Amino acid sequence: MSNIHTDLLAELLQQRRPGYSLDAAFYLSDLVYQADMQHIFGKHWIFVAVEPQIAEPGDYVTVEVGKTSILIVRDDDGSVQAFHNVCRHRGSRLCAQHKGSVGNVVCPYHQWTYNTQGQLLYAEHMGDGFDKSKHGLKKVHVRSVGGLIFICLAENAPTDFDEVAARMQPYLAPHKLAECKVAAQVEIIEKGNWKLVMENNRECYHCVGNHPELTLSLYEYGFGYQPSPANAAGMAKFNEIVQTSHARWESMGLPSQVIEELDTRVSGFRTIRLPLDRSGQSQTMNAEVASKRLLGDLKDPALGGLSFWTQPNSWHHFMSDHVVSFSVLPLAADATLVRTTWCVHKDAVEGVDYDVANLTKVWNATNDQDRRLVEETQVGVASGAYEPGPYSPYTEDLVEKFAVWYVDRLREQTKA
Amino acid sequence: MSNIHTDLLAELLQQRRPGYSLDAAFYLSDLVYQADMQHIFGKHWIFVAVEPQIAEPGDYVTVEVGKTSILIVRDDDGSVQAFHNVCRHRGSRLCAQHKGSVGNVVCPYHQWTYNTQGQLLYAEHMGDGFDKSKHGLKKVHVRSVGGLIFICLAENAPTDFDEVAARMQPYLAPHKLAECKVAAQVEIIEKGNWKLVMENNRECYHCVGNHPELTLSLYEYGFGYQPSPANAAGMAKFNEIVQTSHARWESMGLPSQVIEELDTRVSGFRTIRLPLDRSGQSQTMNAEVASKRLLGDLKDPALGGLSFWTQPNSWHHFMSDHVVSFSVLPLAADATLVRTTWCVHKDAVEGVDYDVANLTKVWNATNDQDRRLVEETQVGVASGAYEPGPYSPYTEDLVEKFAVWYVDRLREQTKA
Amino acid sequence: MSNIHTDLLAELLQQRRPGYSLDAAFYLSDLVYQADMQHIFGKHWIFVAVEPQIAEPGDYVTVEVGKTSILIVRDDDGSVQAFHNVCRHRGSRLCAQHKGSVGNVVCPYHQWTYNTQGQLLYAEHMGDGFDKSKHGLKKVHVRSVGGLIFICLAENAPTDFDEVAARMQPYLAPHKLAECKVAAQVEIIEKGNWKLVMENNRECYHCVGNHPELTLSLYEYGFGYQPSPANAAGMAKFNEIVQTSHARWESMGLPSQVIEELDTRVSGFRTIRLPLDRSGQSQTMNAEVASKRLLGDLKDPALGGLSFWTQPNSWHHFMSDHVVSFSVLPLAADATLVRTTWCVHKDAVEGVDYDVANLTKVWNATNDQDRRLVEETQVGVASGAYEPGPYSPYTEDLVEKFAVWYVDRLREQTKA
Repeated sequence: MSNIHTDLLAELLQQRRPGYSLDAAFYLSDLVYQADMQHIFGKHWIFVAVEPQIAEPGDYVTVEVGKTSILIVRDDDGSVQAFHNVCRHRGSRLCAQHKGSVGNVVCPYHQWTYNTQGQLLYAEHMGDGFDKSKHGLKKVHVRSVGGLIFICLAENAPTDFDEVAARMQPYLAPHKLAECKVAAQVEIIEKGNWKLVMENNRECYHCVGNHPELTLSLYEYGFGYQPSPANAAGMAKFNEIVQTSHARWESMGLPSQVIEELDTRVSGFRTIRLPLDRSGQSQTMNAEVASKRLLGDLKDPALGGLSFWTQPNSWHHFMSDHVVSFSVLPLAADATLVRTTWCVHKDAVEGVDYDVANLTKVWNATNDQDRRLVEETQVGVASGAYEPGPYSPYTEDLVEKFAVWYVDRLREQTKA
Repeated sequence: MSNIHTDLLAELLQQRRPGYSLDAAFYLSDLVYQADMQHIFGKHWIFVAVEPQIAEPGDYVTVEVGKTSILIVRDDDGSVQAFHNVCRHRGSRLCAQHKGSVGNVVCPYHQWTYNTQGQLLYAEHMGDGFDKSKHGLKKVHVRSVGGLIFICLAENAPTDFDEVAARMQPYLAPHKLAECKVAAQVEIIEKGNWKLVMENNRECYHCVGNHPELTLSLYEYGFGYQPSPANAAGMAKFNEIVQTSHARWESMGLPSQVIEELDTRVSGFRTIRLPLDRSGQSQTMNAEVASKRLLGDLKDPALGGLSFWTQPNSWHHFMSDHVVSFSVLPLAADATLVRTTWCVHKDAVEGVDYDVANLTKVWNATNDQDRRLVEETQVGVASGAYEPGPYSPYTEDLVEKFAVWYVDRLREQTKA
Repeated sequence: MSNIHTDLLAELLQQRRPGYSLDAAFYLSDLVYQADMQHIFGKHWIFVAVEPQIAEPGDYVTVEVGKTSILIVRDDDGSVQAFHNVCRHRGSRLCAQHKGSVGNVVCPYHQWTYNTQGQLLYAEHMGDGFDKSKHGLKKVHVRSVGGLIFICLAENAPTDFDEVAARMQPYLAPHKLAECKVAAQVEIIEKGNWKLVMENNRECYHCVGNHPELTLSLYEYGFGYQPSPANAAGMAKFNEIVQTSHARWESMGLPSQVIEELDTRVSGFRTIRLPLDRSGQSQTMNAEVASKRLLGDLKDPALGGLSFWTQPNSWHHFMSDHVVSFSVLPLAADATLVRTTWCVHKDAVEGVDYDVANLTKVWNATNDQDRRLVEETQVGVASGAYEPGPYSPYTEDLVEKFAVWYVDRLREQTKA
């Protein structure tokens, strides 16, 4: 990034007005998009997959972070490895498929062959002077947190992620995600900036007016609402339910209390186990479990939803019967991939224990509604008439925290 | 626009050679496109709709001027209002449909609600400190001239438009466009710069070779031809017809004389009532009226065509039985939207008084022929080999006037 | 090209490491693409068509070199003429079709009319002061080498092409391409930089692993292989076949020896007549002739393949029964047109002497395989992780020569 671009970005960052939506340039400009890819997605831990996608040795998935293709593969020793998906000879992509299973990784162009630890095993016609040990695949930091696979593209990954993993472990462990299987995965492209996708996720002010399926089970109060004169009664009643539920769940050994660290650390995150409405079991059309086979050793279906949000690009809901995970990956200043993955117990039988249409109905509908909201906002902010508007002090607190984290991180990464 | 861009533009403007087509950069460069949107379409009165599109209170249309979406709505008091189609909260587009009818304008995202005068009536969860009166919709200048709706996006709109409206009023009034209905509207995208579309409209040198349907009724001589040795006989005969016709029409109270102000004012325009060939009634395949129900209180079908051209983006033909209007809106340096609207008397009955296919045949054919000419010219000027060529002194005078107006306006707007 | 761009390009050129693939920017950056179009495709002889495409007077083809459309037409005197395909009036493209036949060249817009030597014959309404002789079509250098049509867009074309033509004449003449007819022409778009297409063509290291159809007849050894410890036996056997074949062919009056001038001159080229495997006749699925009617006065079908490679954009295989030619034209930094043309004797009868599916099978399959390799490499080098890798010293020598020629030419053209 040239000096002139750094100056422009610094000026944009300085203009940010607390409590107001971001300037249009943050959603539109290619300069900001490049900065986001370099400094946010290039230097932080980002969520890209779940362990059940690569259950067996040799299983792999590829993920695209901007133009950068990453190969995530399970090694013969059971560990998760991540490499740049690029041959060290003339740069061909190695694995063109999004998922598959390999013994070794063989380049299609001239058959250079690497093992699942990235070492170059074989390269024909290169002669005696060629040192294979200097032409292994380039490694990428990778880490599983309770079965959720995060990668970091930076040379030096943020070290505070160790603490995130440690604090989340007791929350996530009972759901045993690594022992699940993928029941469904859906990708949608939203024609909007990735930050609009994230901001949309960080408030439920829009839920009642837009998400009839989701709000069958979800209380909007749990998603960043603050007490106000207008909603005092509803909030009080909700908080009572939360306290009762937390007491019950904690007594079962399920940590439930909120941890709120969205804008207070490099690897920002938030978690809380929240009650669900009606039968209180799962985010489905009747709030009952979508899979009869509960996760891990769980016995009680009414565990609400353990939500886990991470900066910059994910959120997850762990329920008694399934886990639904969302990975947000920018494609351009005005386009974003949202990949949603539903996992159930690996022994659950489709058609017997669960039905895919029922399992995915709420979030497929909700994702599509959110896509439309994001796209309308992208169109609106592109108008010369847009100016940042005020966040609701009672419902958009987590949006503000996203903005604060984002602006802080970009300031930190781009400062002279 | 940065200083370096202003300098480049000034250099381009200075190079313009009178009597020659514009430099390639005017048709190709994104810099010029941005300048056109900022200085031409952003600061002048542009034609965007006709009143019959929003006949009743609450009726609205949206129009896109570059990335800027404008909401044009008829207020309960019958007036025409125009606003930026952007919510003052987080910037969502308000109305996604191109036309419709509303009571109030409700944002789809968080249901902020505005009335048809743009005032914010309702915004939930915003608390006591929030001042609704400071968050109304942003207004856009709007004005109807004989039923033709013009807007201006500038803070201060050119004031000479008052005079344009006053001078055009007696020409347009007899056709009572505001009391018509829309019989058909067609949008086409031409893969060429908007100035090629306008230049194509400003000469009929190309008509005989390209427009078999249009030239059944249209005399090309009326569209900017000057007497020359080669066409002296034809011009003389045509001028005789014009004089006879003007005498007849003026005696009926229909102003018909030319007003030629295309390059002599900020809000450039031209008008003249021109005879049509054959039965002389309408721009149809047999030159007879397409609608039996004549406009307003008109009795005589043989009124030729009252043409009205405006800089930068419209032309119109008012005939005894229908009005056809053309709105030109740039989409990119190399793409332009042309929206054609045919209006007939509001009491005319489709299938009885008029047939849509017959009404629209000539201009649908002509538009498609012009689209091809524009697109071939866009391809040609993009070649490195293109250099501005000489305009015909006898047939391309109005093209020159368009170029002069355009270059003058850009010079004026961008001068230091 | 501005100074700052020239500096950036100079820096990129200086970084080039001999024996390694090019930096990513050479495949990705729009700056480099513009430089390639200006300095490589704009100033060198490029292959664009074969004479049989314009067999008769008035026959024409158009070819697009970047945004520049060129009209190649056979004049009444039998000569091949080339012009910019742009009207000198307002810049319309003249011929929109890719091929056709004309008496004169008439602009569709205002019917300006040029003859097949580019002279303006007719332009209506232009008046007495207009000098037609100053508004003829702009000429482009054009030259046929053994029936292969090359053009040069520069004002002054490289003069060393005379020598290329003279040295190639005895190799190409016996196949009498100008007396052939086009049996098939196929265009494919490869989503990769044109240099990846050329590099792919300049080595056969990838052939065994990717081209099952081509390697039925082709010995990979002839395409840039150098003797190495690993392939010593294969190379020795192959060289023996080459020597025997050359002796036979030269005794028949067919020059066969290698001329290797790929990186030693402005108009770089290489030629050699190479034996084919099996029956040794043609690049088909059984290595036998695809057309029973041999070219020119040739009697012996087993003439192997006379290959002719030119910098920057072509390769050709002349066999006893047909000629297959490849023209590579950049469309964007990441997209390239490859046009393949198969010619047979003009008296060969389809369905009797040859079958198009059989004639084209090997190269249609091979082109598609190469397309995939190019596209995977384009994706790979776009990753931030790509770095130039080492060429095989034993199989990628001609790739290195392409890179050296390219870098040298760009350095020469852009030096201060």
